[in-house]
Amino acid sequence: MATTNDCSSTDDIRSDQPLTHAQTVWFDEPLALERGGELPKIRCCYETWGTLNADASNAVLVCHAVSGDSHAARHDADDQPGWWDGLVGPGLPIDTNRFFVVCPNVLGGCRGTTGPGDLREIPPERNTGNTNDAKSTPEQSTPQIPYGADFPRITIGDMVEVQRRLADHLGIRKWRAIVGGSLGGHQALQWVARYPDCTDTCIAIATSPRLTSQALGFDVIARNAIQTDPHFQGGQYYGTSKRPDTGLAIARMLGHITYLSVEAMEAKFDPDRHDPRQIASQFEQRFSIGSYLAHQGQKFTTRFDANSYITLSMAMDLFDLGGTRLRLMETFDDCTCDFLLVSFSSDWLFPPAQSREIVNALTALDKRVTYAEITTDAGHDAFLIARDMATYGPLVQERLWQSSEKPQDTSSQRANSETPVQLTVAEESILGFIPAGDSVLDLGCGTGELLAAIRDQHSGIPMRLMGVEVAQENILATAMRGIDVIDYDLNNGLPAFIDDQFDVVVLNATLQAVDNVVALLDEMLRVGKRAIISFPNFAYKALREDYVTRGRSPRAPGEFDFDWHDTPNRRFPTIADVHDLLIQMNVKIDQEIYWDVSQSRHIDADDNPNLNADTAVMVIHRS
Amino acid sequence: MATTNDCSSTDDIRSDQPLTHAQTVWFDEPLALERGGELPKIRCCYETWGTLNADASNAVLVCHAVSGDSHAARHDADDQPGWWDGLVGPGLPIDTNRFFVVCPNVLGGCRGTTGPGDLREIPPERNTGNTNDAKSTPEQSTPQIPYGADFPRITIGDMVEVQRRLADHLGIRKWRAIVGGSLGGHQALQWVARYPDCTDTCIAIATSPRLTSQALGFDVIARNAIQTDPHFQGGQYYGTSKRPDTGLAIARMLGHITYLSVEAMEAKFDPDRHDPRQIASQFEQRFSIGSYLAHQGQKFTTRFDANSYITLSMAMDLFDLGGTRLRLMETFDDCTCDFLLVSFSSDWLFPPAQSREIVNALTALDKRVTYAEITTDAGHDAFLIARDMATYGPLVQERLWQSSEKPQDTSSQRANSETPVQLTVAEESILGFIPAGDSVLDLGCGTGELLAAIRDQHSGIPMRLMGVEVAQENILATAMRGIDVIDYDLNNGLPAFIDDQFDVVVLNATLQAVDNVVALLDEMLRVGKRAIISFPNFAYKALREDYVTRGRSPRAPGEFDFDWHDTPNRRFPTIADVHDLLIQMNVKIDQEIYWDVSQSRHIDADDNPNLNADTAVMVIHRS
Repeated sequence: MATTNDCSSTDDIRSDQPLTHAQTVWFDEPLALERGGELPKIRCCYETWGTLNADASNAVLVCHAVSGDSHAARHDADDQPGWWDGLVGPGLPIDTNRFFVVCPNVLGGCRGTTGPGDLREIPPERNTGNTNDAKSTPEQSTPQIPYGADFPRITIGDMVEVQRRLADHLGIRKWRAIVGGSLGGHQALQWVARYPDCTDTCIAIATSPRLTSQALGFDVIARNAIQTDPHFQGGQYYGTSKRPDTGLAIARMLGHITYLSVEAMEAKFDPDRHDPRQIASQFEQRFSIGSYLAHQGQKFTTRFDANSYITLSMAMDLFDLGGTRLRLMETFDDCTCDFLLVSFSSDWLFPPAQSREIVNALTALDKRVTYAEITTDAGHDAFLIARDMATYGPLVQERLWQSSEKPQDTSSQRANSETPVQLTVAEESILGFIPAGDSVLDLGCGTGELLAAIRDQHSGIPMRLMGVEVAQENILATAMRGIDVIDYDLNNGLPAFIDDQFDVVVLNATLQAVDNVVALLDEMLRVGKRAIISFPNFAYKALREDYVTRGRSPRAPGEFDFDWHDTPNRRFPTIADVHDLLIQMNVKIDQEIYWDVSQSRHIDADDNPNLNADTAVMVIHRS
Repeated sequence: MATTNDCSSTDDIRSDQPLTHAQTVWFDEPLALERGGELPKIRCCYETWGTLNADASNAVLVCHAVSGDSHAARHDADDQPGWWDGLVGPGLPIDTNRFFVVCPNVLGGCRGTTGPGDLREIPPERNTGNTNDAKSTPEQSTPQIPYGADFPRITIGDMVEVQRRLADHLGIRKWRAIVGGSLGGHQALQWVARYPDCTDTCIAIATSPRLTSQALGFDVIARNAIQTDPHFQGGQYYGTSKRPDTGLAIARMLGHITYLSVEAMEAKFDPDRHDPRQIASQFEQRFSIGSYLAHQGQKFTTRFDANSYITLSMAMDLFDLGGTRLRLMETFDDCTCDFLLVSFSSDWLFPPAQSREIVNALTALDKRVTYAEITTDAGHDAFLIARDMATYGPLVQERLWQSSEKPQDTSSQRANSETPVQLTVAEESILGFIPAGDSVLDLGCGTGELLAAIRDQHSGIPMRLMGVEVAQENILATAMRGIDVIDYDLNNGLPAFIDDQFDVVVLNATLQAVDNVVALLDEMLRVGKRAIISFPNFAYKALREDYVTRGRSPRAPGEFDFDWHDTPNRRFPTIADVHDLLIQMNVKIDQEIYWDVSQSRHIDADDNPNLNADTAVMVIHRS
């Protein structure tokens, strides 16, 4: 299908060639499994890119999704495509010139690492290549019975244990970063939940603390389709002439629908919905979507093992870092790494709200975290699609730079990746109100200029700085300054943050655009020991002139200068209005500073600022 | 499962008793099918409630969804529950004291009407009861071979043809109303598309002009699961000891997920997700959702026929009234009925946007239509759920009243169901600007008071009156006045309407709350020959006082009196501002009237209304 690559999932952008660059290592010590039982020996198949440096501090672990494998990226121009070619490679966000990148096939899979297709007794030779070798030489040892459905129930935690053994084998004591999407994200989160000090950075993309009940339901149906296929033979189909390909194909068809958004499917199949691609298939092909699903389903059976599919999907379904924020806070409490979470607006299998649950727990724990919800119509598959990789890739790159230098001291080296800092008079005043070492939350932080200025003013002194923004381009711009920022609508309050979490909460030039001012001020004074607000004074004499002599709706100057009929401002506060409101709210003003920016002069508090000032900045606290 | 009834689909609220009140009629004339082939004879099973009146003008056709049947409602207290008990019955929205209600089982089904389970040769006796009798007497005729998979491909149109024969049989030349949800909605829409004069009212709930590609994909997978079940035996499983129950159960499990919203599934299964209900099942029961799906899937196989499921789902998938607005306009162009469409906010199988496509075509054709998107978390199943029935039921009742009296002359009879009309000074002025017979579109019509006043002022003279609202309670209130209203966000423009569709488009006391004033005024002057706007004048002297002497953000009086920090108003227009803008937009003012409402006096146009008036009303047109 010509458009397949437009929104495809892992297997579509990979051929099914042997993994020519894969290496294999055996771990002889039995692996005790989280849910009981053990595996006597483990074979781990993995690929690497780049070179491990002397102190083994540049290793990045890449974790694959349910139908992926160790071939995350091309090793050279002649190599077959990888499933994350847009993210892993020389000069790419996960830069193989700077990092030693490791991608292992997961435990329970069927692409080289020990899984249900393996023989229970395996010759103890090393480097036997991939799993097929083992089965292709049945005379080597006896008994030669594959695990099949008797493969023990494994968890994401067990997958992590195998990866941990691989790290030891490679001489890696701590990862520079652990990165994964979907099931790969589950692995990354499980790593830091179990080993809080295992990495500098955890990057979890299109993932969740646990599956939704809806996703769980789809997995149950998929497994039922496989297990009720008469060729499944209780899982012991190996060596027989029949495999549960029908059930596996149906499971994969179902998966494909959940990987795409309703919009993406409409764009992909509506134009020719009654014009199916003619393929040889036992499945219905009446509609274009039908032939597509039949094609994907059947293709999958040629490269994936049904028992592995059951094993991996059950491991995903059992994965549960916590259904409440409190449980999630317990899960991540000891983590020392910083986090990047990315979700996709049209992903209904791993909806953005689930990433937000993790972000809300991490922010409440005061962990360093950046979160972006990428607007896309590609659904869950977005994390594998070039167009969306180009959007979130820079966030990954930025996060990897940060953890390789001093956390907040990177702007200078990468000035070119930033717009220069140009502060307004109000912002200069705010800057003056923030002493070195204070923790600062900037609400509606724009491109992060103010936070960058605060950081640079106190350069060298570590400060906890965080921005909140709702516009995607601003979130990206702020993150590119090396500043933590989370994707967040102020009009929903600040539930992500706990009481007195910051020394200062800033609301700069945003008051006049807020839905409910009182609710937001209350939240600011709950989360911050102090709050700083700046706003245009609509009782400024020139604006009164507009009103009185011209009889026109007032036009504030500078950044607030909009036509009355098309302005983002929702209200026209005056200094007197704000004073009244603060008294009414029983909020005290610690400091206030007023400006007539249009005349570039400071206005004293006793010089009737409500008439003479066009701009006000106030430091307030709850008395 | 105790909570099953919270969000269940048809089969959950029905037992599987024989249809004791069902009647059967035979149609001997062969039925030529839309997609070729014919059925030599048709048996139709149906139930009726109430009494057909002398002129056969009180007949309401109720159409069921894919897994439903003729038993829409109880016939008496001892009767088994029906699937629409909340909507059909004495004193209910579809009032069986007033209407003769008919509900037939669909062609291709398995609950009495001819379907794949029927024998090709059937004894020509009458009133043989339901389909089981035919198969239970194999000695009556030969050959006794069921259609099975050879049952011809049928369409929604073929279902309608059988219902049409039933109407003739019952002596019904025109329906009072045709009502249906989901597949039942498809039948209702197909009726009026094919027979434009067949009914006074068409009520289509939770339905669409055609399935989304996503829904199509789920159906394809469901059919594949059935058809690849080895017990399917190419559809000829009747009389054998094996039926494709596994495939049918998997198909039903999949259906169930699509009937529920992600929120509903979370509420239903997250609390005990690891605590499955213990049931005897060949299917996985590890999770509560798993045991629920296994239970629903298996239960379905005891009462539904796999060939029927394939036949009906294919008919749904082939249903296509048009993928573009132009095609939909062609489809409904000749319809003489009025319409009620209802969708549900969390329905992702038949998303509200699909109902909107139909509404946009009908409004462009200037058909009488009311549309409400009901806010609920029950997903597609909402149309069957008591709580949601209680919300949309009154709309159905209202629409049935309307078509039984003069279209716009019903308020008096049902005054009790309405809030009394209390007009503002601005509304009184608008009333004066609208001559009898004009067609009027009221944007942001609130509870429909102004439209009701226009109707009552010109009582007896038919006028085309329509409201647009976004608040659900206002939509319901307006509809209860017997006025057409559609659920619509003004900030998206007026794409539903065509150029010059109305004589007058009214924007009453809403200008100051609109996102983009210019864009909306442009749309109003495109859709209306004239537009009437009313707004509070924020340059009114008392408001200037606020500003100048008190230095406070102005507070408009009356309905516009809000605190600056918590007001729905986005902007503070003055009369002078609006004059400037209209000139800028090259829009002419035909008439204008100004009021000092606070002093209850009229202000002449030459008495500086921008200073002296607190309220302005202008009639404008594009010059």
